[in-house]
Amino acid sequence: MLSTFGKKLALVFLVSLALLNPAFAAQKVYRLRLAETWPPNFPIFGEAVKSMADMADKMSSGRLKITIDSKNKHKAPLGIFDMVRSGQYDMGHSASYYWKGKIMESIYFTTMPFGMTTPEQYGWFYYGGGMQLMDKLYSKYGVLSFPGGNTGNQMGGWFQKEIKSVADLQGLKMRIPGFAGEVLARVGAKPTNIPAGELYTALERRTIDALEWVGPSLDLRMGFHKIAPYYYTGWHEPAAELQFLVNKRKWDQLPPDLQEILRVSMRLSAYDMYIHTYHASAMNWATMKTQYPDIKVRTFPKSVMRALRKANADLLAEQAKTSPLAKEIQASQASYMKKARVWTEISDKAYLDSLAGK
Amino acid sequence: MLSTFGKKLALVFLVSLALLNPAFAAQKVYRLRLAETWPPNFPIFGEAVKSMADMADKMSSGRLKITIDSKNKHKAPLGIFDMVRSGQYDMGHSASYYWKGKIMESIYFTTMPFGMTTPEQYGWFYYGGGMQLMDKLYSKYGVLSFPGGNTGNQMGGWFQKEIKSVADLQGLKMRIPGFAGEVLARVGAKPTNIPAGELYTALERRTIDALEWVGPSLDLRMGFHKIAPYYYTGWHEPAAELQFLVNKRKWDQLPPDLQEILRVSMRLSAYDMYIHTYHASAMNWATMKTQYPDIKVRTFPKSVMRALRKANADLLAEQAKTSPLAKEIQASQASYMKKARVWTEISDKAYLDSLAGK
Repeated sequence: MLSTFGKKLALVFLVSLALLNPAFAAQKVYRLRLAETWPPNFPIFGEAVKSMADMADKMSSGRLKITIDSKNKHKAPLGIFDMVRSGQYDMGHSASYYWKGKIMESIYFTTMPFGMTTPEQYGWFYYGGGMQLMDKLYSKYGVLSFPGGNTGNQMGGWFQKEIKSVADLQGLKMRIPGFAGEVLARVGAKPTNIPAGELYTALERRTIDALEWVGPSLDLRMGFHKIAPYYYTGWHEPAAELQFLVNKRKWDQLPPDLQEILRVSMRLSAYDMYIHTYHASAMNWATMKTQYPDIKVRTFPKSVMRALRKANADLLAEQAKTSPLAKEIQASQASYMKKARVWTEISDKAYLDSLAGK
Repeated sequence: MLSTFGKKLALVFLVSLALLNPAFAAQKVYRLRLAETWPPNFPIFGEAVKSMADMADKMSSGRLKITIDSKNKHKAPLGIFDMVRSGQYDMGHSASYYWKGKIMESIYFTTMPFGMTTPEQYGWFYYGGGMQLMDKLYSKYGVLSFPGGNTGNQMGGWFQKEIKSVADLQGLKMRIPGFAGEVLARVGAKPTNIPAGELYTALERRTIDALEWVGPSLDLRMGFHKIAPYYYTGWHEPAAELQFLVNKRKWDQLPPDLQEILRVSMRLSAYDMYIHTYHASAMNWATMKTQYPDIKVRTFPKSVMRALRKANADLLAEQAKTSPLAKEIQASQASYMKKARVWTEISDKAYLDSLAGK
């Protein structure tokens, strides 16, 4: 027979047991706030983020909740890195090369002109040392960085006039941001950046002569094919990879199962975005060609490609001189790509060549 | 004050509460047994299965345990489908086209001669209706089927002599199994199948004139490059996708979080295997070429490709006549590929072309 005290003790004991059980501890809900560069309901990019959060939610039975703030909420589409670094947000979805003004070496983790294709680049990230180099860069800032979805090979852009030689690039006003813009500037073009909402009008009114956006996956809704006849194949962003950012202190607070759930959700949604974009580009290009059969697909002539390649190589050499880490990353990418490209050429390229013009 | 009966009741109540709590139910461990076609510690394919099981284990905090039996254990490498269907195993890892003797339409879910490349085919599976068609086929058997890892574009094989025309294929003894073997037979070759362990000797002693295996990722360890000078580029398996099988009754017994953990683990390990193979092929090809600089890479001449394409088209047309589902799948693949290939040609192919022979 238990005394009243004994009964109370038994109750306290049982309730404590229940609360201390790992199964109860495992019920704790972890909430992460993510800021994305994109506007609300942005196709493909925004869907990749939602898909990541949905998988994490389902796999954790609701123990890992990720809320997404789009740019209309946080008002800092190009400030994601700072917000994750400071802890204002726990996670971010953006692109590494947006931070090049702050961290020059960040540009190597998105895509490089004349660089690797998507499977080559994923090979480098996951099996060729790329992730280690990205961590070497970002860990200094208390931030973890992961691939966040690939756009595939981006088109070279919409042009009002055909480009037949380097002379045609002199003074050409083109919306093309970032490193590729610098390359074009070296060969005589006038790169500018213009907000997305003003691009159509700028191209229509000839404020600019050309622009690049992404590819058919996202170009169709912009309508550029209605007002510029030439669509150039790509050279400058052969495999643009978006980026997930996670604040390291926040990551460390997650139990191991939720860390794995988060890692896997990010990695899968990135691959899925690559395939989603591939699909959307294929379907949208078919739509564009049906509605506007006069779109002329062109590849820059060899002389233009040579000039662009030289300008690109010069710029890379200058960067390598200013930073040992830049030099290390460039060397790693160049040596990986050398082997990977030979394989690409005797596998997919040889196959496609053998069927072309069948 | 509680009576003795009341005290007992309180105890029973508290213990029941604890046991019925979803957190306690969530502690239940689900064990699945998987049979794989491959021998123990098989590179890349076997690693994909282990990676899948590891992710599921970690993400579920040990609540989803998958044990893997290799072919030395179950002794039925080409009987995986039957064992999963009957419930002898809960899961399998194999390739859909191994079941073509039983279910003719299963061949369409691995790869097809002259068919889609890997990103094109993943686009078809996940965004173009392929998963629905695969489910339409496999659900009849109480089995769920998922992509299980892609080998990328497989090489056309190792040949003792150069193939300059269709005449050179007459009577050519080649190890090439499956549908591709049937295509070759139509143009006059003598396809055979020989166990993996006897292939090297058969090629060395000229019991066979040629063989195809996979590509540098798995060919290097087989050593064929030491004894056959010609390595032909691919036509017959442009995107071979392995397969995860799950017994439907077993799947239905899993709680929703574990179903999602399993789905995600399979899907991610499949994509990862594609990139892993890409990486291994690039590295191994570089090794082969260093050790044996005399390997001659060749592509079949146009006349041979035309003959193979015609034989392939004839065989497909015959299959379509025997099965409405085969006809439906063929139509879905053909219409998807038509759009996807145009995109591949103006994106990755145009890019690679523009850089070739730079």
